Amino acid sequence: MKRIGIADTTFARINMRAIAIDELKSLQTGFQIETYTVPGVKDLPVACKKLFDEYNCDIVMALGMPGSQPIDKQCAHEASLGLIQTQLMCTKHIIEVFIHEDEAANDQDLTWLTEQRTREHAQNVILLLFHPEKLKKQAGKGLRQGFADVGPARG
Amino acid sequence: MKRIGIADTTFARINMRAIAIDELKSLQTGFQIETYTVPGVKDLPVACKKLFDEYNCDIVMALGMPGSQPIDKQCAHEASLGLIQTQLMCTKHIIEVFIHEDEAANDQDLTWLTEQRTREHAQNVILLLFHPEKLKKQAGKGLRQGFADVGPARG
Amino acid sequence: MKRIGIADTTFARINMRAIAIDELKSLQTGFQIETYTVPGVKDLPVACKKLFDEYNCDIVMALGMPGSQPIDKQCAHEASLGLIQTQLMCTKHIIEVFIHEDEAANDQDLTWLTEQRTREHAQNVILLLFHPEKLKKQAGKGLRQGFADVGPARG
Amino acid sequence: MKRIGIADTTFARINMRAIAIDELKSLQTGFQIETYTVPGVKDLPVACKKLFDEYNCDIVMALGMPGSQPIDKQCAHEASLGLIQTQLMCTKHIIEVFIHEDEAANDQDLTWLTEQRTREHAQNVILLLFHPEKLKKQAGKGLRQGFADVGPARG
Amino acid sequence: MKRIGIADTTFARINMRAIAIDELKSLQTGFQIETYTVPGVKDLPVACKKLFDEYNCDIVMALGMPGSQPIDKQCAHEASLGLIQTQLMCTKHIIEVFIHEDEAANDQDLTWLTEQRTREHAQNVILLLFHPEKLKKQAGKGLRQGFADVGPARG
Repeated sequence: MKRIGIADTTFARINMRAIAIDELKSLQTGFQIETYTVPGVKDLPVACKKLFDEYNCDIVMALGMPGSQPIDKQCAHEASLGLIQTQLMCTKHIIEVFIHEDEAANDQDLTWLTEQRTREHAQNVILLLFHPEKLKKQAGKGLRQGFADVGPARG
Repeated sequence: MKRIGIADTTFARINMRAIAIDELKSLQTGFQIETYTVPGVKDLPVACKKLFDEYNCDIVMALGMPGSQPIDKQCAHEASLGLIQTQLMCTKHIIEVFIHEDEAANDQDLTWLTEQRTREHAQNVILLLFHPEKLKKQAGKGLRQGFADVGPARG
Repeated sequence: MKRIGIADTTFARINMRAIAIDELKSLQTGFQIETYTVPGVKDLPVACKKLFDEYNCDIVMALGMPGSQPIDKQCAHEASLGLIQTQLMCTKHIIEVFIHEDEAANDQDLTWLTEQRTREHAQNVILLLFHPEKLKKQAGKGLRQGFADVGPARG
Repeated sequence: MKRIGIADTTFARINMRAIAIDELKSLQTGFQIETYTVPGVKDLPVACKKLFDEYNCDIVMALGMPGSQPIDKQCAHEASLGLIQTQLMCTKHIIEVFIHEDEAANDQDLTWLTEQRTREHAQNVILLLFHPEKLKKQAGKGLRQGFADVGPARG
Repeated sequence: MKRIGIADTTFARINMRAIAIDELKSLQTGFQIETYTVPGVKDLPVACKKLFDEYNCDIVMALGMPGSQPIDKQCAHEASLGLIQTQLMCTKHIIEVFIHEDEAANDQDLTWLTEQRTREHAQNVILLLFHPEKLKKQAGKGLRQGFADVGPARG
C-alpha cells in the first residue's frame, strides 16, 4: 500500500491539511496518509525527510503559507531550497504547496486561493504516484495551481 | 532519557539560553539539556551538528540575534541555510530562534520580544519531542512566536 | 544502448518535449529516450535524479518555462541550483533548457524562441553524449541557444 | 596534540595569518599550527577541507578580505556558504574572519580593524578548542570582533 | 604524473583553454592536461566533477565568460556555488576563471583581460599543485588576477 505524507505548519492561517486529505480521498483509494505538523515553513524540509525515512512515505505534500514581509520571503526561499535538497537525498517527490499571504487581497480571497491550489496540487500528487502517464499528456499545457490556467501558447 | 540541545552565541545581546532553559523546565520533566556556545549565528550550524553527533541530542534549539546591517541579514540567511542542511543530515529538528535586532525599537522591546519568542519556541520544542499530536491540532491556526498570533483566516 | 532522459512540466506553455525528441531523433540513432513529466520547474531536479537512478539515463534534458514574476524568477533559481546538485550527485550532465516567459514579447516569439533553444540544446546533448571532441572545437566561439550566436570577440 | 589550521589568501591586503599566529601563540601552548594559502576567498572552503582531511586539524581559521564591489560581496557570500558546508561535512569549526574592504575608510583603519578582528577571533578559536566553558559564560553579552562590543541589552 | 583538468564553454567568446594551456606549459613540465568542453558556465561543475572522477585530475581550471544581463549574473552565481560544492565533494581545488562581459568596455579590452586573468590563474594552478610554499609567501599581498594588483595596505 502506498503512503502519502502531509507536512503542514501552525504558522499557516488555514487548515491546508484538511483540504489536502479531502481532495486526495475524493480522487483515489488504496493509499495511507501520514501527517506531521511543524511550527513554520523552515521546519518543513526535515519534517518531509522524517515522513520519508521514518514513516516510509512514497511522496509528500509540504503545505505552507509564507507571510508578506521580506524576511518571510527569505524564509520561503530557504524552505524551498531545503525541500529540493530533501527530494534529492530521498529520490522522492515533495509537492510544495505554498500560498504567499500577499497573493490574496483579503481573508476571503486567501481562503479561496488556498483551497484551490491545495486541491489542484493534491491532484498532481495522485497523478505522480498512480498515473504518471496522464501527467505526461498535460505537459506544456500552461497549467497553474490556484488561479486560472494560462493555457498553451498560440504560436 | 531524551536530550535537548541548546546552541547560542556571544554575539546576542541577551542570554537567550537562560530563557530557553527556564521555559523548557517549567513545561516538562524527563529530559536532559546540553549546551554549546559559539561566537555568531554562522557558527550555529556546526554547533548543532555537534550537539546531535557528539552529545546525542534528539532536538536542538539554535538561538541567535542577527544585527540590522545588510551583512548581518546575509549572515542570518547563510546560517538558516546551514541549519536546514544540518537537520537534513541528521534527520532531526533544529528550532531556529532568531531575533533580528531591527524588529525592536529599543532595548526594552528587544528584551520583551526575545523572551517571548524564545519561550514560545521552547514550547514548540516540547511539543515536537513529547506531544506531536498536540501540535497537529494547532495546524493552520496562524500562530506566531513573539508578537501576537495572527489567527486563522476568516474566509 | 545510451539512454537520454527528458523531464518536462505541465506549467510550460509549449510542448518542449516533442521538440526535443524530434531534434534528437533527427540528429542521431542508437539511443533510447525516457520521459518524465512534473508540475513545475522546482519538481525537475528530483525528476532528473529519478531518470538517472531509476531509468538509467546517461544524460538528461530538463525543460522548463519559468514565468515573469519575481516569485517565478526565484523558483527558476532554486530549480537551477537543484539541477546542478543533481548532476554532482550523479556525475552526469543535465542540460537545462529554460525559456523565461519575459524573454519573448508575445506567444509567437515565445514559440519561435522555445523551438530554437530546445533544438540547439538537443544538439548539445548529442554532442556531449556522442561527439565530445566536436564540442571542444566550438569552445570560445560565443555560441548562444535560441537567439543568434554572439560569436568570438574581435580582439 | 591539537592542530589549528589557518587558511588565508593572496587577495587580502594584509598578512592576516601572521596576526593570527601571533595571537594564538600568545594565548596558549600545546598545539601545532598548519597553514594553507589560496588565491581568494572562494578557494577557502576546500582549503579548510584539506586542512581537516589531509592535515588533521581540529579547528580552522579562514582568513579573507573581500573587496567592495557587488561581485566581491557575492564571492564572500558563496565562500561563507561553502565554509558552513565544510564544517557540516567535517563536524568541526571553521572560524571565518572576513574583513570587508569597505568597512574601513582608509588603509590605516583597515589595518587596525584587521588586526583587531583577527586577534579577537583567534581568542575564540582558543576558547572553542580548549575552554568551551569560558565561552558559555560570554553567551548573550553582545560581543563583537573588531569594533567595540555592543554589550548586553538594557531591558 | 600530475593531471591538470581544463573545463571550458562554447558560450565564452574567447578560446580561454588555449591561453591556459599555453601558460601552463610555459611555466612547468611533468604534468598532463585533460580538457572538457560544455555549453555554458552552469555545466562546468559536473564537467569538473568528471575531470576529477573519470579523468583522475588533481586540480581543475573552470573557464567561463558570463554575460552582462541579470540572468547571466545569476547563472554565474549558481555555477560558482556548484564549483565550490564540487571541490568539497572531491577535496581538490578548482580554480574558477570567470571574466564577466561587462568588466570590459569593448572586445579589445575583453581580450586583454581574458588573456591576463587566465594566465595569472594558470600561474596559481601551478603554484597550488607544485609550489604551495611559494603561494604562502604571497599571502596578504593584495594580488589580483587580470587588472593590476592592489598591493598590501599601507597601514
